[in-house]
Amino acid sequence: MYNPTVLTSPEGLSDGILNRDRRALSRAMSWVEDEHPGVDRLFRRLHGRTGRALRVGITGPPGAGKSTLVARLAQLLRARHAEVGIVAVDPTSPFTGGALLGDRIRMPELAADDGVFMRSMATRGSLGGLAAATHEVVDLLDAFGVDWVLLETVGVGQSELDVARMADVTFVVLVPESGDAVQAMKAGLMEIGDLFVVNKADRDGADRSVMEIRSMLALRDRKGRRPLEVKTTVAVDGTGVPELLDAVSAFLETARADGSFAARRRKVERWRLLQLAQRVLVRRLTIGEAGESALERLTDDVLARTTSPHDAAAELVEAALKGMAGRT
Amino acid sequence: MYNPTVLTSPEGLSDGILNRDRRALSRAMSWVEDEHPGVDRLFRRLHGRTGRALRVGITGPPGAGKSTLVARLAQLLRARHAEVGIVAVDPTSPFTGGALLGDRIRMPELAADDGVFMRSMATRGSLGGLAAATHEVVDLLDAFGVDWVLLETVGVGQSELDVARMADVTFVVLVPESGDAVQAMKAGLMEIGDLFVVNKADRDGADRSVMEIRSMLALRDRKGRRPLEVKTTVAVDGTGVPELLDAVSAFLETARADGSFAARRRKVERWRLLQLAQRVLVRRLTIGEAGESALERLTDDVLARTTSPHDAAAELVEAALKGMAGRT
Repeated sequence: MYNPTVLTSPEGLSDGILNRDRRALSRAMSWVEDEHPGVDRLFRRLHGRTGRALRVGITGPPGAGKSTLVARLAQLLRARHAEVGIVAVDPTSPFTGGALLGDRIRMPELAADDGVFMRSMATRGSLGGLAAATHEVVDLLDAFGVDWVLLETVGVGQSELDVARMADVTFVVLVPESGDAVQAMKAGLMEIGDLFVVNKADRDGADRSVMEIRSMLALRDRKGRRPLEVKTTVAVDGTGVPELLDAVSAFLETARADGSFAARRRKVERWRLLQLAQRVLVRRLTIGEAGESALERLTDDVLARTTSPHDAAAELVEAALKGMAGRT
Repeated sequence: MYNPTVLTSPEGLSDGILNRDRRALSRAMSWVEDEHPGVDRLFRRLHGRTGRALRVGITGPPGAGKSTLVARLAQLLRARHAEVGIVAVDPTSPFTGGALLGDRIRMPELAADDGVFMRSMATRGSLGGLAAATHEVVDLLDAFGVDWVLLETVGVGQSELDVARMADVTFVVLVPESGDAVQAMKAGLMEIGDLFVVNKADRDGADRSVMEIRSMLALRDRKGRRPLEVKTTVAVDGTGVPELLDAVSAFLETARADGSFAARRRKVERWRLLQLAQRVLVRRLTIGEAGESALERLTDDVLARTTSPHDAAAELVEAALKGMAGRT
């Protein structure tokens, strides 16, 4: 029997999520962000309920209008009776420790809709924590039962691009400004997009921008597959958004049919496993007396130049092994 | 006896570097970027010769004039008879696999000077590879004998900021544009700067920009220490660059005196050790039959929902450590 007052244990939270309690969902997301020790047990109970939601990545340079486009897509999906989760990876303020723009401020038109679930992720931590935490938040939404997760991330920086890579389909949003496509190419965005969108297409130069993107995409090896699509939108008034959603759906349908959908999910899951394994190792090395003392001692040795960092790292992993063997 | 023709082994390369052979330095840097298996042995021989060079981080948004400022600083240091290494972390082109701007094109005035050593790092790989590889390139320059390493990185993205954090002193370059300081704060730049520079200070709004930065810095907890300095420069004609270098030197002198220099180096080395330990683990999990099969099998289990990713990761680490025990 689900007791909505017990939201402090992994079992209570997972029951809450499976019973569609929004407070449980929200608290579980905070656990993920805080790296709460109960997260592993939480996912032991929830993982079996994940995998159904479609994950759409939206990336592009700052100022391209990604958030507005995401809001329009969410509205359109809501009109079609789908439930939508939105996860935004935002730059962090070092002063507040969180995203500068609150979830409600970002998309006032969606804040009152209880079929929409929003979360802003702060860019914090290190050692690959951002992508792993984002993946967990997406999984929570999936287990909660949303049909679509819109995963918005700024298209600059290695960790941020890693986030975009975890989606089933990712589109890159650019604006019709001279050189924007070149900058996007430099930032690695052309490589990760499955679709391209020129937003603010009512501005001058939109047609030229589409052509510019097409010519860059032509350089990309497509191994005989059909060329990637370039769509145009005006997110502020919704122009082109239904056509964009159709293109996203068509991409997913084709990917399901040719097996690339499953192959990509496998690749993402394999990559995530390696990230989580690293987290396990780092915890083992930094938490608890045995790990901490080996790390501190070896740091001293490296600074004293009595061992190289590379040999010290191998020794550190070996020390973690011994601590582990001792516990089994 | 050093034989300059043998640059294919870790021993040959390290001898070459210690004998100040530029070709050896360049090849060792390529080894680092390619994650050549000889890198560990290379650093076993070179690590004892590192630690002398001063590491200056230069970061800021694209277009702030970082590269020009770095070139001016290098010229000034050269005029004072110091040898200078420059490491630039650039966005990658997915088409070329390397930096779009060649090292020589970036700073033509320095290309002919054999007391200057430049390297552009591509933003590639994942799992924290960029910061670790950059650290190794800096160490190679250090072992080669340069006095200063100027470490330039774009101030967007988590991995890129990790690069800036490894320096002994880091300054943030901004331009006098409305809202630039706010953007920098959002990107986490205010948190990592030891000094701030308003470049292109001949433009309108430079004074306002300095004030804006000062007011944001006032929010930062300085625990009774003196406020951070904000300098102005015009990198294209060199205005303010000597004063900037003086401020950098003064910061380092104070840090040496109060122990924070050594404390920061220790923190950086400890962090690097954790990164290298993760690399050891990932190699063990992805290279060789035993590791690969455990990873593939557990990925399948996670996709089949018979185990959670978190439990699979713990099992993976256990499998890796057992494989290790088997070899000792």
